[in-house]
Amino acid sequence: MFISSLSNQHIKDINRLQTKSSARKKEKLFVAEGIKLYREIPKQDIVNTYVSESFLKENKDTVKGSYIIVKDNIFKDISDTVTPQGIICIVRQREYNLKTILNKSKKQTFILLESLQDPGNLGTIMRTAEGAGVDAVIMNKQTVDLFNPKVIRSTMGSVFRVPFLVYDDLGEAVNELKKDGVKVYAAHLDGKNNYDEESYETSSAFLIGNESKGLSEQITAMADCLVKIPMEGQLESLNAAVSAALLMYESWKNKRK
Amino acid sequence: MFISSLSNQHIKDINRLQTKSSARKKEKLFVAEGIKLYREIPKQDIVNTYVSESFLKENKDTVKGSYIIVKDNIFKDISDTVTPQGIICIVRQREYNLKTILNKSKKQTFILLESLQDPGNLGTIMRTAEGAGVDAVIMNKQTVDLFNPKVIRSTMGSVFRVPFLVYDDLGEAVNELKKDGVKVYAAHLDGKNNYDEESYETSSAFLIGNESKGLSEQITAMADCLVKIPMEGQLESLNAAVSAALLMYESWKNKRK
Repeated sequence: MFISSLSNQHIKDINRLQTKSSARKKEKLFVAEGIKLYREIPKQDIVNTYVSESFLKENKDTVKGSYIIVKDNIFKDISDTVTPQGIICIVRQREYNLKTILNKSKKQTFILLESLQDPGNLGTIMRTAEGAGVDAVIMNKQTVDLFNPKVIRSTMGSVFRVPFLVYDDLGEAVNELKKDGVKVYAAHLDGKNNYDEESYETSSAFLIGNESKGLSEQITAMADCLVKIPMEGQLESLNAAVSAALLMYESWKNKRK
Repeated sequence: MFISSLSNQHIKDINRLQTKSSARKKEKLFVAEGIKLYREIPKQDIVNTYVSESFLKENKDTVKGSYIIVKDNIFKDISDTVTPQGIICIVRQREYNLKTILNKSKKQTFILLESLQDPGNLGTIMRTAEGAGVDAVIMNKQTVDLFNPKVIRSTMGSVFRVPFLVYDDLGEAVNELKKDGVKVYAAHLDGKNNYDEESYETSSAFLIGNESKGLSEQITAMADCLVKIPMEGQLESLNAAVSAALLMYESWKNKRK
């Protein structure tokens, strides 16, 4: 198949999924772009692969399975990047269930995100979560869409490997975790102990709040323990992805040692 | 003074400084935008303050010192943001000297950045550096311009408080630090020890490489010690600002305890 027109239905489908969070949610699909990301997509998750003419000329052996060729100047239109690499996939969104992830026989780690707004932060948290062996990244529905193209790019493929869950009410997730024996920590300036003074001996979950507002009082009150990330200077807070990374890696130390 | 025309010289000056790294370098000035950032600028660093008409109406008491009023629709043109808050300053770039920062009587920490390209990463590293009490952030000239508006915003004001240095040759900075007894660590997959297994008993400097290429062989070879940030899963690396944060906070622990 060869696409040479902007009015082709495939082109419309890709553009809709690139730009509209509502379409991604409804169709349970998203767009993954670029060669590095392509290599990380589980093949069974791919709905369609689109390559530009010039990409195909130079990367014949890269594309496994079937693909649709798109004229170079049309490809520019479906790309979310300034300099398109020439390969885009429509991918199925994975779905996870907290009940099947929870495992009392292991020491587990979870990240709970409340209303994060920056795509780069969410992607970086997914990426760091993979590095730190986190069992799932859980977010409320006010958090930026995980399937936003900018988020997907900054996950560096972790979105295909780290389980994630979106809750209408984050408090529900906190309750499920607590019921299963997971200790819930909130990164908070009112914490009694510094984050590196806790032992994290049980399974742990870490609450990270919105970039400008922090955690809501309501969700903070649900935490078992507030931990403080100390700061010198005159800062009000650290970047959300940095706070999450410090907590994930600190708790992972106990698993490693 | 009231500016109501795009051809006003002040407007041209601001736009040049917003968009051109070369102009910022030559004039040793930069633009800081937004109310939060405005509150953090040391008053002696401000060259000019510009406020929109509507900002002034609602924030009469915010602006200390003299200011220039800009017509609302002209203000939109000088703003680097989608929804301008209505306050912009032209600010003098601070200049630092490594020799006067180096202090053998203290345990110091430095961050060395090689060719970082992402404005958000550089800004986040400056911000985290303030939190972790880092003595200076040192970068090579191939690193994204620290005075890029996106970098400035993501420093959250740390750019006014954390000393920074830009070197034509990063190796020169490494040599100066080593000569002064600072141990230079490179975050590297070939590291023998994990980053949290080193004691950081002396003054420390941490080399962080470019987002996609990592550290060059040349600069890696200059490090006293390679340290590894362990990763589970299939990741090739962590985000540069996350790596930097883990190292800065780990070495800071020894200072705190």
